[in-house]
Amino acid sequence: MSTLVLLRHGQSQWNLENRFTGWVDVDLTEQGRAEAVAAGQLMKAEGLHFDVAFTSVLKRAIRTLWTALDEMDAMWLPVQRSWRLNERHYGALQGLNKAETAAQHGEDQVKIWRRSYDVPPPEMPTSDAGHPVHDARYASLDNRVLPGTESLKLTLERVLPFWFDAIAPELKQGRNVLVTAHGNSLRALYKFLNQVSDEDILEVNIPTGMPLKFELDDELNVVQFGYLGDADAVAKAAAAVANQGKA
Amino acid sequence: MSTLVLLRHGQSQWNLENRFTGWVDVDLTEQGRAEAVAAGQLMKAEGLHFDVAFTSVLKRAIRTLWTALDEMDAMWLPVQRSWRLNERHYGALQGLNKAETAAQHGEDQVKIWRRSYDVPPPEMPTSDAGHPVHDARYASLDNRVLPGTESLKLTLERVLPFWFDAIAPELKQGRNVLVTAHGNSLRALYKFLNQVSDEDILEVNIPTGMPLKFELDDELNVVQFGYLGDADAVAKAAAAVANQGKA
Repeated sequence: MSTLVLLRHGQSQWNLENRFTGWVDVDLTEQGRAEAVAAGQLMKAEGLHFDVAFTSVLKRAIRTLWTALDEMDAMWLPVQRSWRLNERHYGALQGLNKAETAAQHGEDQVKIWRRSYDVPPPEMPTSDAGHPVHDARYASLDNRVLPGTESLKLTLERVLPFWFDAIAPELKQGRNVLVTAHGNSLRALYKFLNQVSDEDILEVNIPTGMPLKFELDDELNVVQFGYLGDADAVAKAAAAVANQGKA
Repeated sequence: MSTLVLLRHGQSQWNLENRFTGWVDVDLTEQGRAEAVAAGQLMKAEGLHFDVAFTSVLKRAIRTLWTALDEMDAMWLPVQRSWRLNERHYGALQGLNKAETAAQHGEDQVKIWRRSYDVPPPEMPTSDAGHPVHDARYASLDNRVLPGTESLKLTLERVLPFWFDAIAPELKQGRNVLVTAHGNSLRALYKFLNQVSDEDILEVNIPTGMPLKFELDDELNVVQFGYLGDADAVAKAAAAVANQGKA
């Protein structure tokens, strides 16, 4: 038996401004930092002890992790960052206000881009200065693995190798693992772990700053899972995420 | 050619109280945090770009690293923590006020313990609750490697395997490396890199929060080295460290 906690970063500046963020390295708001503090305190109060932590290479997830580790007095934990835990790449929509995009393209098209399983938004060309091929943090990677847009399906396909190669081996050894990442990279793991269908995953919304705990057996099957903390607060936060794409 | 920066953590609460800290996990003071911010700003202003960072498993070094990375907009850098970069273990002196210890044992004895190359302080027994064998962060280690006291010589002997196995391979590949650690683990690296004698190292004092930059050739010989920033401030800070052991 091992414990896995998935934690979506606290509110970011662009969550607040309702803009498509994707791989843009936006920081947490003050509220987002407070959410990360609360998440750390909640995990501490639950008596959770982790052996290792994983996060993306985006600062909103890293700062959420740092803040939670600080609250748990566990700054010494080994931390591995990976681009494979990054948010879904939102292509040419990155930086646009979600409501404005909805007004322009229609709420249905935005819902398809945001919540369809396999339809990626329009691609960002590699000539765009914001494309990951121009970012030092990805300089050691083969450019051909770096996306210019992603559907949730494509996100899942690049998250899973990291699950199999880095996260799962820790859990198989009985270690407890904390993953701080993003709405869609965590939905990908949620879909995989809970064997959610391509359709049903569209209605799953992971709220910011709410630790989602899985108890896994030796074969990494889910024995039980659920959010820590107050159920009403979790439901309200998930509903807020679902409403972000409306004009 | 590669660049290595050694950065001692900012002022800790026990630096301020003039107590022997060693492996006790004391946090930074507000001044210490400000020193870490200034160190990050200084490295950024120098145009330094790192590829990887190393730190100890003690929060004063980790927080210094986090703060500096944040200032440099480089939170995404891979970070490896190791107990081998910890401060020298001060044995049974840990927690004692340096001036009080000097008044009790004599300033000469304290200077021997603090600044002799190979005389460790009285050992902390493994039955002591503060011994590292009781600390979760070392639980995966063979207890026999965990010290109950260390001289600078013993500190160097446990730092060097990490230099050879983790840090040096990065530098040999031309990567730029940041190491945030402690007065004595960094003196050990300083002694090794600059081939300082057992006697001369006793007079080398590394100030808190001052980035010490080495340019290394392909064989990791030191081409040049020196502190970033204002020379007077560096000299004043080093003198303050040297005076800590006086009654």
